[in-house]
Amino acid sequence: HHDEQRIVFEDAVDQLEGTELALLLESLPVAERLERWEQVPDEERINVLVTMHSESRQAIFDSIDEEKLHALLNNVHAEDLVQLADTLPESVVDEALQNMAEMQREHYQQSVQYETDQIGRYVDHGLYILPRTARVRDALRGLKKSSFECADCLYLIKRNGDFAGTVLIQTLFSAPPEQSLQALSIDEPMTVPAEMSRSTASDKVEHSGLMALPVIDANNKLSGRITLRQALEITRENYESQLMATAGLNEDEDLFAPVLRSSKRRATWLGINLLTAFFASWAIGLFEATLQQVVALAVLMPIVASMGGIAGSQTLTLIIRGLALGQIAKGNIPPLLIKEVSVGALNGVLWAIVIGVIASFWFASINIGLVIAAAIVLNIIAAAFSGVVIPIILDRLTIDPALSGSVILTTVTDVVGFVAFLGLGTLFLL
Amino acid sequence: HHDEQRIVFEDAVDQLEGTELALLLESLPVAERLERWEQVPDEERINVLVTMHSESRQAIFDSIDEEKLHALLNNVHAEDLVQLADTLPESVVDEALQNMAEMQREHYQQSVQYETDQIGRYVDHGLYILPRTARVRDALRGLKKSSFECADCLYLIKRNGDFAGTVLIQTLFSAPPEQSLQALSIDEPMTVPAEMSRSTASDKVEHSGLMALPVIDANNKLSGRITLRQALEITRENYESQLMATAGLNEDEDLFAPVLRSSKRRATWLGINLLTAFFASWAIGLFEATLQQVVALAVLMPIVASMGGIAGSQTLTLIIRGLALGQIAKGNIPPLLIKEVSVGALNGVLWAIVIGVIASFWFASINIGLVIAAAIVLNIIAAAFSGVVIPIILDRLTIDPALSGSVILTTVTDVVGFVAFLGLGTLFLL
Repeated sequence: HHDEQRIVFEDAVDQLEGTELALLLESLPVAERLERWEQVPDEERINVLVTMHSESRQAIFDSIDEEKLHALLNNVHAEDLVQLADTLPESVVDEALQNMAEMQREHYQQSVQYETDQIGRYVDHGLYILPRTARVRDALRGLKKSSFECADCLYLIKRNGDFAGTVLIQTLFSAPPEQSLQALSIDEPMTVPAEMSRSTASDKVEHSGLMALPVIDANNKLSGRITLRQALEITRENYESQLMATAGLNEDEDLFAPVLRSSKRRATWLGINLLTAFFASWAIGLFEATLQQVVALAVLMPIVASMGGIAGSQTLTLIIRGLALGQIAKGNIPPLLIKEVSVGALNGVLWAIVIGVIASFWFASINIGLVIAAAIVLNIIAAAFSGVVIPIILDRLTIDPALSGSVILTTVTDVVGFVAFLGLGTLFLL
Repeated sequence: HHDEQRIVFEDAVDQLEGTELALLLESLPVAERLERWEQVPDEERINVLVTMHSESRQAIFDSIDEEKLHALLNNVHAEDLVQLADTLPESVVDEALQNMAEMQREHYQQSVQYETDQIGRYVDHGLYILPRTARVRDALRGLKKSSFECADCLYLIKRNGDFAGTVLIQTLFSAPPEQSLQALSIDEPMTVPAEMSRSTASDKVEHSGLMALPVIDANNKLSGRITLRQALEITRENYESQLMATAGLNEDEDLFAPVLRSSKRRATWLGINLLTAFFASWAIGLFEATLQQVVALAVLMPIVASMGGIAGSQTLTLIIRGLALGQIAKGNIPPLLIKEVSVGALNGVLWAIVIGVIASFWFASINIGLVIAAAIVLNIIAAAFSGVVIPIILDRLTIDPALSGSVILTTVTDVVGFVAFLGLGTLFLL
């Protein structure tokens, strides 16, 4: 069986790109992952590691002794080391830095000055730079021996390293060889400040229409570029963390994380949720006497809470997307609130009628039908209102609404639902 | 007030790219959006419309009379018309086709042969094609007058239009002018079949290391290319629909959709959820007699359901991501199931103890504590098991697990939670 896996993986290694191999390795239980890792060709290894989610990569690093780590990181690129450093022992990073070419070490040290969510940390250094006094002929000559990845632009700098302009490579071919590059450069070239957040910078590249944008530090020096491919990776990571956050999970979660570590992390989220559940129970507890007399209320109460929860999460999801796309601002909150509450009211009335009729027949009591109908309308309207307001407040407080929005919303819809239903029941059914 | 908005938007038009203007227009209530639309310069309009979500775009089209639509679409590119066609009246599309250049019309007709989820429908035609007999000198001459967007490759075709190879433009600069392009072309060039799904094709471009891949039809003809920028758009759309699907929403939902239309769409999702809520109520109803005698059960039962729901949705989210990344296959399902159920058992026992102790004190009854503790363990384990199994089964049935996974999971955790808790209560507390 093991031999068979070895052979299947050998085929995969031949056919897949490094990034696909990373996905494949992540999909394997840890013991098997470590066996297959041995088959990954040396020249692919850094690329595979950089692509993996950090927890999955950690499992591989943990199994490699320091000697082999040194060999693996011999001549690693600055960009790659920046990505790997947080999952490596400090001594290994230091050793790798010492073996690096002077230039790469400088790149590394510049990058790690920036925070993990700033674009300056992730700049790519494979860009084509020329002094602003250079001519078209020089640029064309440079293209012949260049080894950098495909680019649509070259960048001009002043003698002191200050950024001085962007030239579309396209324009070189039809320009006279003696023309100065400065004269060819784009008017008002777009640049990205190194302190900008990763996601804002990546949106900027996406919308630029160019393959990359130059990244400029606080002193107007050209520190590197951010490419469309990086923008794609950043976008993917952002969405993944948003999706994982809805369940209180981390984007870097390994499919085969150790049971104990995984349990510990998830326990926190369950604990937070337990608090909100106790809150709901407490609300129900206020009406113990009523429940004792009208047991139908206990049977029907999850329906009220659940309809509120679903309606609220629809609004919440729409607003969270709007916030992520930068589409929610002071000006459009009032009309949004009106629209969502109207939708809530309409759906509240519709489903209140349906549920009211069913409940009336089920428990042979029109009063029960009326009570649940009223509670449903109230709860769905409250849910729509909260679905707009909660994520906007969280966003203002710079708390991620994708992570905590739904916990808070559920607390509101549970408590409002139970109190409205059991409260109205106490007033009209006893 | 209106004048003020007009001026603010005028500034935005000057400073923003077309894609950013699209996001801004989408963020406005419909009446205001239509006013601001008038300020969008003619040359930006098609770009803005193509970028918008289709429902938001529809609101603009609905307000433009047919005469103006014809003018707007005069000389539209085939790629853009393909994107806009589903939100336009058929007569307008026909008129636009008649005014198109012969070549563009052919492109359009080729594209719409493919389904909306096939990459062939969205190919980009701005690619640099040469006969395979051409030489380096011809290619360099072509670069001088070319107007296509930056590319890293040019493509070779046979006399009959069959795809014949890919040449990295980079390699042209250092090659002798008389060399044949065929000799320079990449070994085993990557291609994308036009029938491939959009998301698979976009992953392929992302992993290719190139800026674009050629798209080949069933007869081996070169139909166009898919670029990294398109891959980014497709990736964004996929994640957005996954996020919106978790709340039963559509990726194209307009923030300011008309109240009636929006209510109608959301009503369906609420109705589906209502069925599952009634299912839970029915389960509770089985234990009416017990609830009448031990009202504490009614107070505590939402806690059991909610802890199961949260634990289950954590597993579900992890598995859905794994499925989306293509990381779940027959081979790793058993170890995944073992891991997730172990995590569930561990967290189940932990929180069972906490909740059991609290419940014992709250209702001054050790028996109630024991009953709820047992129910919590059972429900969290069932939730972990279902969190793995449900999305995998849905995926096999080609039902989107992001859309229906959580509804089905909640039904399971509600019913198992209520039956376990109230069933054990009936056995041990009466």
